[in-house]
Formats: sequence, structure tokens, C-alpha cells
Amino acid sequence: MKRDFLYLDISGKIAGLIRKGTLQPGDKLPSVRMLCQEYGIGMNTAKRVFLELEAQSLIVSKPQSGYFVNQLPYQRLQLPEVSKPSAGTHNKEPEGLIQKVFSTMGRNDLTLLSMGVPSSELLPLARLNKEIVQATRNLRSAGTAYEPFQGNENLRRMIAARSHHWGGQLTADDLVTTAGGMNALSFCMMALSQPGDTIAMESPCYPGSLQLARSLGLKVLELPTHPVTGVEIEALKKVIHKIDLCLLVPNFNTPLGSCMPTENKKAIVKLLAKHNIPLIEDDIYGDLYFEGQRPPCCKTFDTTGNVLWCSAVSKTLAPGYRVGWVAPGKYKEEIMKLKLVHAISSTTITQEAVANFLRSGKYESHLRKLRSNLQSNCDHYTSAIADYFPEDTRVSRPQGGLALWVQFNKAVNTTELFDIAMKHKISIAPGRMFTLQHQFEHCMRISIGLYWSDEVQQQLKRLGRLVHMLS
Amino acid sequence: MKRDFLYLDISGKIAGLIRKGTLQPGDKLPSVRMLCQEYGIGMNTAKRVFLELEAQSLIVSKPQSGYFVNQLPYQRLQLPEVSKPSAGTHNKEPEGLIQKVFSTMGRNDLTLLSMGVPSSELLPLARLNKEIVQATRNLRSAGTAYEPFQGNENLRRMIAARSHHWGGQLTADDLVTTAGGMNALSFCMMALSQPGDTIAMESPCYPGSLQLARSLGLKVLELPTHPVTGVEIEALKKVIHKIDLCLLVPNFNTPLGSCMPTENKKAIVKLLAKHNIPLIEDDIYGDLYFEGQRPPCCKTFDTTGNVLWCSAVSKTLAPGYRVGWVAPGKYKEEIMKLKLVHAISSTTITQEAVANFLRSGKYESHLRKLRSNLQSNCDHYTSAIADYFPEDTRVSRPQGGLALWVQFNKAVNTTELFDIAMKHKISIAPGRMFTLQHQFEHCMRISIGLYWSDEVQQQLKRLGRLVHMLS
Repeated sequence: MKRDFLYLDISGKIAGLIRKGTLQPGDKLPSVRMLCQEYGIGMNTAKRVFLELEAQSLIVSKPQSGYFVNQLPYQRLQLPEVSKPSAGTHNKEPEGLIQKVFSTMGRNDLTLLSMGVPSSELLPLARLNKEIVQATRNLRSAGTAYEPFQGNENLRRMIAARSHHWGGQLTADDLVTTAGGMNALSFCMMALSQPGDTIAMESPCYPGSLQLARSLGLKVLELPTHPVTGVEIEALKKVIHKIDLCLLVPNFNTPLGSCMPTENKKAIVKLLAKHNIPLIEDDIYGDLYFEGQRPPCCKTFDTTGNVLWCSAVSKTLAPGYRVGWVAPGKYKEEIMKLKLVHAISSTTITQEAVANFLRSGKYESHLRKLRSNLQSNCDHYTSAIADYFPEDTRVSRPQGGLALWVQFNKAVNTTELFDIAMKHKISIAPGRMFTLQHQFEHCMRISIGLYWSDEVQQQLKRLGRLVHMLS
Repeated sequence: MKRDFLYLDISGKIAGLIRKGTLQPGDKLPSVRMLCQEYGIGMNTAKRVFLELEAQSLIVSKPQSGYFVNQLPYQRLQLPEVSKPSAGTHNKEPEGLIQKVFSTMGRNDLTLLSMGVPSSELLPLARLNKEIVQATRNLRSAGTAYEPFQGNENLRRMIAARSHHWGGQLTADDLVTTAGGMNALSFCMMALSQPGDTIAMESPCYPGSLQLARSLGLKVLELPTHPVTGVEIEALKKVIHKIDLCLLVPNFNTPLGSCMPTENKKAIVKLLAKHNIPLIEDDIYGDLYFEGQRPPCCKTFDTTGNVLWCSAVSKTLAPGYRVGWVAPGKYKEEIMKLKLVHAISSTTITQEAVANFLRSGKYESHLRKLRSNLQSNCDHYTSAIADYFPEDTRVSRPQGGLALWVQFNKAVNTTELFDIAMKHKISIAPGRMFTLQHQFEHCMRISIGLYWSDEVQQQLKRLGRLVHMLS
């Protein structure tokens, strides 16, 4: 660890004590001098520790008294309610809304709270550039040639090797690469469904998956979902005879950020295998846990090959590289055929660059830094919402991932809010995008992937004022 | 033009006179000394001119008499017959054959006559590498970010600008980029069809398109196709009321290499517009003409927006970059939506690199060189077939593109030939791949994209021996 970041190391430790409740709101922190002695650091470093914790709203300074533990941002706000989508399948697409929101993609003039990706300040750009150059040097024909159509072998080997983090036992041959995560989901859904089939998903759910299902002529059954523990298993059991296919994002899904407890994962894998219903598992956020260990996947408990585990580097390294993959279990042949038919192969150079980056070992240290930044962002954003938004605002408490789900009182229509906020150069993701029913009109998702800055804080303050005006 | 390649310039001019018939078989060529005087060149250069023409089998030397024009390779061989697929739609997929042949992709140990791509010796690798590095420098977030989902704007602008070569009037806004040419065809076919619909295509036809149609549940109607002038319009007229969609490769299609006369293109565009049947035009080989001018496209004559013009750089620059595009005419909105749903965006870096390469003006000079190489390859390969294969072998006479279509007598089963040739480290594309009916079992496609060398010649000789054994 670089000396420069010593203060971050120490502030992170103290933040951990606060988050876990070892230090409680109102507790007094040691003085600057005591901190110097305790950690063997200088005055300046000790001061930076307190400033950092204060910036995260974890502590407050009281004149002449020192620093005290603050009420945690999320303790000031209630959780969103468990979703209650109506039974049966619905088909009420939010006409034009999704394309309108997605068309903000790549715009530099906006505060992009709408896009669920980490901003470039959080990415190892210099190292990735080196890997791109190295890839053109290493590759046969400088990366202009097609690669074997199962995908870059080094990349598949490295992903397989990393699967032990979540209790996976993959080999390179179990994996097929794709042009990003969406492309992996697309192949899975195409391989496993016929028009008219019914697919079960979380509610609220990633709009891309809803659109994909609709585009393939599927009926979507939205399942009640808890903001902390994910999809409600009892609800799934009730409709198990009505569905042909299931898509879940068990770890830190967007927009809720929920993480299914291990027991729930086991139970769902067993339930679906028993009924021979394939499970597409989107694990694109799995590496972005804020505390503790990498959570297991549904795939971890898959003994029958019934789970198609999908992921990508779009949320951790480079969305623009379009590097994703799927471990399709017993459906591998169908997926390989679809890839050949619809794409032939994926981009050669970016796959090789990611493979080498993984092999270098830099990925783990990058992920550590990214997770720590996202967790601190999560506190910053939650704190700003508690400060600037109406008192009855509810906000999710994600244990990982890239998003906050914000629920207002029913008076606030976030589709209107989108248009108004755009006039202030702020883009949000209105709740209506995340469902095919009439629900979530008073909710929104905001990304916590933007680098935290005064400007972002000011824009959140501005957004809060707009919400006040609507509510 | 570099001094080094002066001999190629002169041999190219003489080759042109021979190909156009200005010089006829048996005509005597000027002596080395006369050539020196005529072009103001040295003895060594003049000798290299003759050696080059001799290597292309365009001339023969007779002892003590000098050089004489040879019979052109294709004059020694008949054209393949016009295809006569049976009427109605068929569904006899060549089980496993296509995957078997495609799995040779990227193998270094084979003489890859099976793959329809130019070999890397024919590509501007050093310059492309520079463009990749430059792209990581120019792009916001070093190319790790998503780009606007219609695709790289510079790239779309350059493709639009180049459309005047074939009489197109495109603007950047008319184009949507895709992850390669196959991906463009995939979006078009998905956007325009429902399972059970019928699509008309050339016969023989690119296997990827047949597989794509089958994968989407379409019925394929294969049309009689002339090896020189392409699809037979009268045949299309007869079935016009039975089809919902049409996919054609009017310029130098694979495997035949035919090029539809301009009048036929006009007639087909009119016919399909009248019946409101969309035309997907795959123009991926359009820039690879051997003589004269860039041929027009069907899109050139499209006044109603009914033609979806697809292309890519996979046959001219870099298949592994996965850079393609479509000008979808009046179907743009559907295509944009499908791209968003199935892919979100294409790879950022490779699109920017191609855009800058096009902008640099280097593309035109690269294409000139590539076309000249492919034309000379075409002569080399045709000549080797005339020399080494049975006398009753027929071979196509492409006016551009990357392939030769070879027809043997009925005794030769090319699916068997594939397996036998693989034992000799040669891969071919058996004719059965190019149809969903029982036809073309005695045909094969070979790529002329491999760099011509003694080794390739020896392998063709070996392949000829194997065919002799089977026939």
C-alpha cells in the first residue's frame, strides 16, 4: 500500500467499526493526538482521516468537543417496500422511455446518474491501455483475425480460475465468451425459449432484460422482491407451474442492490432443477460486494447443469470493450451454435487485453479499490439523499453493486422528474423503466458509479429541490 | 508508387491486356530488350515482369523463342452450371458440418482454404496497430466507455462519405454500427421476420445466412443462381407471392462470386418494393472488384427505404475487430431497438480505429493493393485447379471477392473430401454447407484470400490428387 493512502486505510478501518455498529451514533472518537499515537502516524495524516470520515457523513465535529459518530445515512431513511407486482404477465412497455434514457449514454455534458457503470476515474485506464497495445503485439495477425469461436482461451482460463472465489468449479471449456453481458443474456434467452413462453424475473428488474424478453415474444412474470434479500421464494413456488424459464440477478442486482442469502440460492436452484426450468443467472455485479467475502452464486450449487451463469467486465473494467461470457452448463451446444450464427466471434483484441489484465494479478487490487470507492460513494449518495430529499423518501441499502433505489411518495412522478432534471443537466433512471406494469412511477434508480465530487453533490442537492417541488 | 514495385505495375498492365483479350493466347510478347526500351526500365526489372506474369500462368516461355500469351486458366475450364434448387422450402441442415468447418477457424497448422477472409499478409497490420493505439489516446475514457448506441459517429460519417463510390447518398444518421457483418444480418432478419415466415436467398448461399434464418424459425426458399450474373430474376418473380423477406448478396457473393448486372439490381429493387417485401442486401464484398469501377448496390436504386444495406470491414481489413454496419432505410427504428436490446453497443476502440483508418485516406490505397493481390490469386488458384484437378472440373469466374466455387463430377463427395483433406492439413468448404437441400455434394468453395506461396501451390496439388482418387 502506498504511503499516500495510509489515511484512507485508517479511515476505512474506523468506517468499518461504525458500519458494523461497534461504534454507535454519539460515541466520541479519539482526539487527533490519540490517533497519532495509536497508529504511529503524523498530525497531518490523522487530520486527513477525520476529514475523510466527515466527508462520508460518518462522523460530525462539535466545536471544542472533538469528533462524534454520526447517525448512519441509511438509519435516517426507511427501506423501500417489498415490491408487489400484480399476478399474471403484463405487457405495458414504458413507450420510448428506455430509449430516451439510454440515449443519454456517452453524453459528457450531463451528470449521468442514469447509467449503471463506474465512471472512468474509478478504472485502471493506463494499465488497460498497456494491455491493448500488448494484445496487438502478442496476437497472431495483430488481433485482426477471427479467434476460435468459443472465445479467447486465456480469457476463459482466467475466468474459470477466478470461479473458486464464489465456490465455482469451472474449467476453460465450460465457458463461452460473448460481446458483453447483455449479449450473454440474449444468447441464453434465445436458446431456451420459444415465443409465447413465460419467463420469471425479479421486480423491479433491469430494463434491458425486460426488453430482451419482449423482443423475443416472451411473457414476463414479475416476482415480488425484497430490497435486501432479493426475490421472494414463496412467490416463485406459487407460479412454478406457469413458467418456462427464470432469469435472476442474485448478487447486488440493479436497481435494488439486494443479495439473496445462500440458503435462498440453494433452495431456488433445487426448486428449478426439480421442475426442469432453466435458470439464467446474471452475476455481473457479483465482484462488487462492499463487506466480507465474495458471495456465492446460484451456479455454485448447480449439480445438474441447469444454471447458465453470465457475467462480464462491463461493471468492473470497461463496458466499451464488450467482453462478457456465459458458463451455460448443459446448454453449451445451443449457446455455441447461437454465437456462431449471430456473431461468428467476439472482438479479438479486447478479450486478449482483459485476459492479460486478469493474469497480471492487477484485477484483485483494482477490485479492492473499486469496492472501497463504491462503498464510500454509497454512503455519500445516501447521505445526500437524507440531507436534500423529502423526509418520507425511502432508499435501498445495497450490500454491493452500483445503484441506489429511491422511493418517493406517490405524488412524485419520476418520468416527469426525468424531463425536468434533464433541463438541469441531470439524468436519472425513472422507476417505470424497471417493470412492464404500472408500478414504480414514484421510484428512481441512481447510479453510485460516478466519482464523488462537489459537483455531484451540488447536482444531488438540485435534484432534491426538484423532488421537493413535485411532492 | 515505390520504385520497388515498378515491375508489378508493368506486369499488371500487361496482365490487363491479356485478361481483356487485347492480347490473345499464342500472341508473342516483346523481348526483354524491347520491354526495357518501351518502359524505360532496366534488364532486371524487365525480367521480373516476365517472371511475375509466368508465375500467374498468364504467359509461357518457349526455349529460343521468347514469351507467349498462355491460354487463360479459366479458358481451360467450364463454368459451373446454373443452380437448380428444387422448388419449395427445405430444411435439410448439413448436421454438424458447418460447426466442423468453422472450428478450423484460427488454426495455424492448416492450409485454410475453408475460410473466406484475406490472410494477414494482405492486411495493413502495422498501420492498424497504430490506429488502435491512437484510438485509446483519442477516446474519452480511453475507449472503456460505452459509445452512443447508434455507433461511432466518425465511423458512420466515413462510411456515408464512401457511399458515393457506389452511387449511395447516405448520411451518418442513416447508419447503425454492429459487431461485424453477421451481426448486421442478424438484426435485420430479427427485425423483419416472424417464425414461420419465408425468406428467399441465392443458391448456393453463405452458410451463416442459412443458419441464421433457420435459427429464427424461418423457411428458406433457395433461388436458381447464375455463376456470373447472380440470382435469376424470373425465378424470383415466380415465387414473389410466397415470400416475406429477401436476402441477396448482389456483388461478388460467396461462394459463386457472381455480380448482378445493374439492370437486374434495378429490376429487383422495383419488384420487391412493389410487393412491399424488404430486401436485406449483404454488400460485404462490394469493394473487392477486380476490374473497372466499384459496382452499384441495390441500395443505390432504393427510393422507398425498402433496402437494408449491410457491410463490414471483415473481408477487407480485420474480421477480428467485429466492425460492421447497416443502413436500414425505413426500418431504422426497429434495428436501433434490437441493437440496444441484444448488445447495448459495439466495441468502442476497434470502431474508432477503423474510423481513423478510413479518414486517413489509407483505405483506398490498401484496397487497390488488396484487389490486385486477390485478382492475381484468382488466376493462380484457377490455374492450379486447371493443372492439378480432373479435366471435367468446373470453376467459377468471379469478377471480385474472395472465393472460387469448384464443381466436380458427381462421383466426388466433398463432405468426404473434407475429412480426407484434413488429414493432409488442408481445410475446404464442402458444397453441402451452402444449401438446405441435397445438392452441391460434388462442389466445394475454396478461399482465394490466402497469400499465394509455394506451400499453397503444393497443397492445391495434393488436394487435386485426393480429388483424382475420389473421382
